[in-house]
Amino acid sequence: MRIAIDAMGGDNAPDEIIAGAIESIDALGEEDEIILVGPQDVIESKLPRKRPSQIKIVDAPDIIGMDESPIESLRKKPKSSIGVLAKLAKHDRADAVISAGNTGACVAAFQMRMRNLPGVNRPGIAVVFPTFSGPVTICDVGANIACKPINLYQYAVMAKMYSENLLGVENARVGIMSIGEEEAKGNEIVKKARDLIRSDPNINFVGNIEGRDIFKGVCDVAICDGFVGNVILKLTEGLVEGLFKAIKHELLQEKLRLAMKFKPVMMRIYQKYDYNEYGGAPLLGVNGTSVICHGSSNARTIRNTIIKIKEYHRNHINEQIIEYLSKTSIRTADEQGS
Amino acid sequence: MRIAIDAMGGDNAPDEIIAGAIESIDALGEEDEIILVGPQDVIESKLPRKRPSQIKIVDAPDIIGMDESPIESLRKKPKSSIGVLAKLAKHDRADAVISAGNTGACVAAFQMRMRNLPGVNRPGIAVVFPTFSGPVTICDVGANIACKPINLYQYAVMAKMYSENLLGVENARVGIMSIGEEEAKGNEIVKKARDLIRSDPNINFVGNIEGRDIFKGVCDVAICDGFVGNVILKLTEGLVEGLFKAIKHELLQEKLRLAMKFKPVMMRIYQKYDYNEYGGAPLLGVNGTSVICHGSSNARTIRNTIIKIKEYHRNHINEQIIEYLSKTSIRTADEQGS
Repeated sequence: MRIAIDAMGGDNAPDEIIAGAIESIDALGEEDEIILVGPQDVIESKLPRKRPSQIKIVDAPDIIGMDESPIESLRKKPKSSIGVLAKLAKHDRADAVISAGNTGACVAAFQMRMRNLPGVNRPGIAVVFPTFSGPVTICDVGANIACKPINLYQYAVMAKMYSENLLGVENARVGIMSIGEEEAKGNEIVKKARDLIRSDPNINFVGNIEGRDIFKGVCDVAICDGFVGNVILKLTEGLVEGLFKAIKHELLQEKLRLAMKFKPVMMRIYQKYDYNEYGGAPLLGVNGTSVICHGSSNARTIRNTIIKIKEYHRNHINEQIIEYLSKTSIRTADEQGS
Repeated sequence: MRIAIDAMGGDNAPDEIIAGAIESIDALGEEDEIILVGPQDVIESKLPRKRPSQIKIVDAPDIIGMDESPIESLRKKPKSSIGVLAKLAKHDRADAVISAGNTGACVAAFQMRMRNLPGVNRPGIAVVFPTFSGPVTICDVGANIACKPINLYQYAVMAKMYSENLLGVENARVGIMSIGEEEAKGNEIVKKARDLIRSDPNINFVGNIEGRDIFKGVCDVAICDGFVGNVILKLTEGLVEGLFKAIKHELLQEKLRLAMKFKPVMMRIYQKYDYNEYGGAPLLGVNGTSVICHGSSNARTIRNTIIKIKEYHRNHINEQIIEYLSKTSIRTADEQGS
């Protein structure tokens, strides 16, 4: 399997990305290949002189910044690492692509070049939240901020596949993010999507869920519009950081010794609930395998992502999604006007 | 001032609600009055034999459950405590109303009976998040799940007034919830609302904010659609609870003594960042003063809410909102079709 990685993506690129690629070699088979994409000279200077034979380089001299406008930067910089990554996938020179760079540019490039899986209307980004009650897969967290009911239905199908095949969840309980558990709650899109999901007997649907339910063990998959999902993702990040800051502050007010004792506990919690453990977030529904990693990704994230991608392929998740959607009549129903 | 309270609203009603009313007597002036609304016999049985003269009772035999459909329950139960509360405000028999009951029923009843402040198109619920960097007022958190740009603009104005006059924030920094800081980010409603807010020179507008920014001290007011705001509110609740649960679990794994030492720190953090401290959430924009409290409200929440309501009146916040909106031309602009 050939996995192409954006060597220049994210806050810790290229060092951590390249380190992650090297560290993942032991998890690869002989037939596997890692393709580092970025300015050739930069990558070569960061690689050990004797580099593992499985590591290749594809030159991409341009870099898209984290804050650049996705569409415009892709157009202006055809030789950016993200643009080249997408082209490698398109021309079947890579089986999977990974980037910790500009999320918007990744979504745009991967969608445009790789196209969608047969039967999928719009791809969605799935993120795994590690919670006290187990991992919860949330889709979409930012690829599609104007979701139609059919998109939400398909996110339910794809995230279910991901949860069951990659996280070992059995018969994943799927919930749709709304503002109350009662049937009447939610906007029109949510209500229509709920009807679509419910009409599929193969989905273990728990109906509406609320923000708090993500952490309460009531579902394994939470479906939402990309706008809402993105707010959820970033809010969670900010809140966890803010809360730990407050705890630290409070402990230091108390006694330095107590703070020191609490530190290893804090670190363990950080590790245990660290989403880097699950690798990056797959853009489910593109015709290929693409994973978008957090901007703060480190070597461990990249390594875990590579391992997850291998599992993703081994479990034929894309093929399962195609088969599932080809057998359901729900796509047709929506296209007829719901 | 006459403050009417739903004695039957919330998980801890009527005991905690009535206790809170009694505990707030010392914060009231001689001219003030607390009107407890609910089944007369129940309320009387819970009051001390010699009750303070400022406490009155208005009979409302029906109760709307926390999970009942708002509109339907209001129609079927005209003598519910929430329905009677709204009527007291309408007929000028109460200057302010408080309920910790069914939020949807409160919003529907208060909007319907009290109508809107002159110039306000739709009321919005404002919640204060205590953060490490100070209190952040978020509006709307659930009154209006299909916001128009003009609604979001007016939430910015009203929440600014609230933040400055009630929380002591100077020249409140207002942000609009989106999925990235860049201009291009956000859906159409958010983009149009951003233009409206920016066109008002009296608003200290910081532009787009992301979920994480709420806890980073970049704004004092965060504006969003009621769907997104409700998810934010409940997610925060669930995440804080989940995180503390994880910390407790981890500490208990470690050493019981360490866990015991950490307990008072935890309690202090809970208190410091407890939103009950700020009382309930005002439904800004109704023609009157109405506050919706969390279902888990206790006596302290009710007491704090009563104190806040007195301040709200003393600072003439509603009058300021009316005056502000009467002077802006932004309402007209939107009505002409933006």
